[in-house]
Amino acid sequence: MRFHTRKWVKPEDLNANETLFGGRLLGWIDEEAALYSIIQLENRKVVTKYMSEINFMSSAKQGDIVEIGIEVVHFGKSSITLKAEARNKMNRVTILTIDQIIMVNLGDDGKPKPHGKTKIEYVKDRLGEAS
Amino acid sequence: MRFHTRKWVKPEDLNANETLFGGRLLGWIDEEAALYSIIQLENRKVVTKYMSEINFMSSAKQGDIVEIGIEVVHFGKSSITLKAEARNKMNRVTILTIDQIIMVNLGDDGKPKPHGKTKIEYVKDRLGEAS
Amino acid sequence: MRFHTRKWVKPEDLNANETLFGGRLLGWIDEEAALYSIIQLENRKVVTKYMSEINFMSSAKQGDIVEIGIEVVHFGKSSITLKAEARNKMNRVTILTIDQIIMVNLGDDGKPKPHGKTKIEYVKDRLGEAS
Amino acid sequence: MRFHTRKWVKPEDLNANETLFGGRLLGWIDEEAALYSIIQLENRKVVTKYMSEINFMSSAKQGDIVEIGIEVVHFGKSSITLKAEARNKMNRVTILTIDQIIMVNLGDDGKPKPHGKTKIEYVKDRLGEAS
Amino acid sequence: MRFHTRKWVKPEDLNANETLFGGRLLGWIDEEAALYSIIQLENRKVVTKYMSEINFMSSAKQGDIVEIGIEVVHFGKSSITLKAEARNKMNRVTILTIDQIIMVNLGDDGKPKPHGKTKIEYVKDRLGEAS
Amino acid sequence: MRFHTRKWVKPEDLNANETLFGGRLLGWIDEEAALYSIIQLENRKVVTKYMSEINFMSSAKQGDIVEIGIEVVHFGKSSITLKAEARNKMNRVTILTIDQIIMVNLGDDGKPKPHGKTKIEYVKDRLGEAS
Repeated sequence: MRFHTRKWVKPEDLNANETLFGGRLLGWIDEEAALYSIIQLENRKVVTKYMSEINFMSSAKQGDIVEIGIEVVHFGKSSITLKAEARNKMNRVTILTIDQIIMVNLGDDGKPKPHGKTKIEYVKDRLGEAS
Repeated sequence: MRFHTRKWVKPEDLNANETLFGGRLLGWIDEEAALYSIIQLENRKVVTKYMSEINFMSSAKQGDIVEIGIEVVHFGKSSITLKAEARNKMNRVTILTIDQIIMVNLGDDGKPKPHGKTKIEYVKDRLGEAS
Repeated sequence: MRFHTRKWVKPEDLNANETLFGGRLLGWIDEEAALYSIIQLENRKVVTKYMSEINFMSSAKQGDIVEIGIEVVHFGKSSITLKAEARNKMNRVTILTIDQIIMVNLGDDGKPKPHGKTKIEYVKDRLGEAS
Repeated sequence: MRFHTRKWVKPEDLNANETLFGGRLLGWIDEEAALYSIIQLENRKVVTKYMSEINFMSSAKQGDIVEIGIEVVHFGKSSITLKAEARNKMNRVTILTIDQIIMVNLGDDGKPKPHGKTKIEYVKDRLGEAS
Repeated sequence: MRFHTRKWVKPEDLNANETLFGGRLLGWIDEEAALYSIIQLENRKVVTKYMSEINFMSSAKQGDIVEIGIEVVHFGKSSITLKAEARNKMNRVTILTIDQIIMVNLGDDGKPKPHGKTKIEYVKDRLGEAS
Repeated sequence: MRFHTRKWVKPEDLNANETLFGGRLLGWIDEEAALYSIIQLENRKVVTKYMSEINFMSSAKQGDIVEIGIEVVHFGKSSITLKAEARNKMNRVTILTIDQIIMVNLGDDGKPKPHGKTKIEYVKDRLGEAS
């Protein structure tokens, strides 16, 4: 799994017990899943359809750095299935994992549309850059 | 299931496709589950431990009113299991359901602590109000 | 008065004295008045026109649960007058009351438009549900 | 009345009808009243106690610049009464006015405390600056 | 330099070290520069093009009042160059200064467009008000 | 330069012209610089001291994905100098660059403190993980 986005836990991210608000974390993961799918499917109209069960294994507190990892589990015909993990950047303790997040590729009519992708692509290859 | 909290979908709640951002909705539900548990367990230190799978059945758009319902599934020894639904207030179309959200009751030491509750209570009864 | 929406006071809701920021609370009430009016008048274009005097009777602190109640005072021809109260959910102590909030029903041209409503309606009746 | 703080109306400030959200505007005014009182009373513990009736005379839309004016109406013993106006910066059309906002000066014990002020002071005079 | 907008540093404005988050302050200054330019150039389509180096000379903490000053350095043909300072309102200690912020005036096509302005104007003069 | 954090430009990130608000982008970069420094210096008390000039080379619009890159320019005795770039993830068009961001390492007394670091370290090496 590759971890990209990092978040610095600030006062605005805390719940009333002063630990990281679970809803905020779910928002971070949902955003990461959406943008990851947009990059892979090369389509801006992608929506979250399903998340498998979520275990909150540990928490985070103010000042912690959380990193979010995404991995492709499966390319469907008009969907992509991802796996996600949030962990503490400094000690790698897992905060939560979600085994399956299904994102659906939509057409202009708002209906599922085949995306034609079958494997992970890198933007640098699409752009023909030397790595 | 009883529906209490209502949200008016405003521009700040939208994703880049201009539908309700899934992460925002999950945040609303997590907050509702937390405060519902705090009320039932009469303890402010309550944390989200687990959510069962989540189906995003429909979406919402700017100006829609979303209401969030919570129901107790089970009183554990130091936890409470809830069921949640978000739906469109005006036409009652379901947006998503979560069959189990497990909230854990913590003591001052941050460890699970028995809460002694076995059934739903109403604040008006605790306060001895005439209903 | 019926209380629906509940809020969990989090760090992002506090003023610099670490009590609930009055402006945040007024925002919550204005949103509740707007969505309540939208539901009753079955029209999305509803705007706040007037609020009568506001007494801040007590405050709230981090971790408190605030619930917001709305009651219809009067159905005008193209307006609706509401009464609002915010109180602490756990001990029912009143935080503030507003005796009159006048919401105006607008037409597509942005001008006041008669709404034809004269009494409170419930969505379940409109939808013909068994209660 | 002197107008200081200005706000640029951005998408995050809009209600679902895409005009300035009334609750946001009330938050801006409450913040301005609080900081104005802190400056005058030279005390950080100042709370909003009362607002007289509020007339929403016009609205604002995305991209408008709103300026907020505050004027002292009266110095009480442990309070200060302000008058506020929000208007469109470019054409000076009034958005709303509030004739009285009563802010209370608190001591460390959280109770009202005499502030000893009887007239407006300017920071530059307190600091002995040449104007 | 004239200081207009004031901000009350609240928990949501803090970084994880509980001092004013630098990014938040830069956001406040960028907004002030934008709206100042809109007022002077009488055009809503104005964008930030350049900021000269930024020295963070001191910080601010929760409850502080920060005021933001803007001064015109130069009127270009299709741009305006501003100078900005943020300081603590109560003791006038400088928090940061930016010597040049270049804002560009855009036409409807999104390209730089001459604005025809050569000196500072006041809204009250434009509106023909008695001062 | 390595790019980690990605942001999905949502309505709440836009200025009144509906392009990415410059202040929001500066906030994202400042947060990334802070957390990058915390990771390298293994100290949570790190503050932004200086940013060299900033050229806004292009903008971003709703739905774009922005990625933020950081590179170490220099390890000082009690500071670290970084270089930052924000670019569009899909087409790699540069949005802005900042050649030098100086972050200072503070001790518990809030004063600059030597950090003892002279080169980039990876968390996986610190933790003795097999790569």
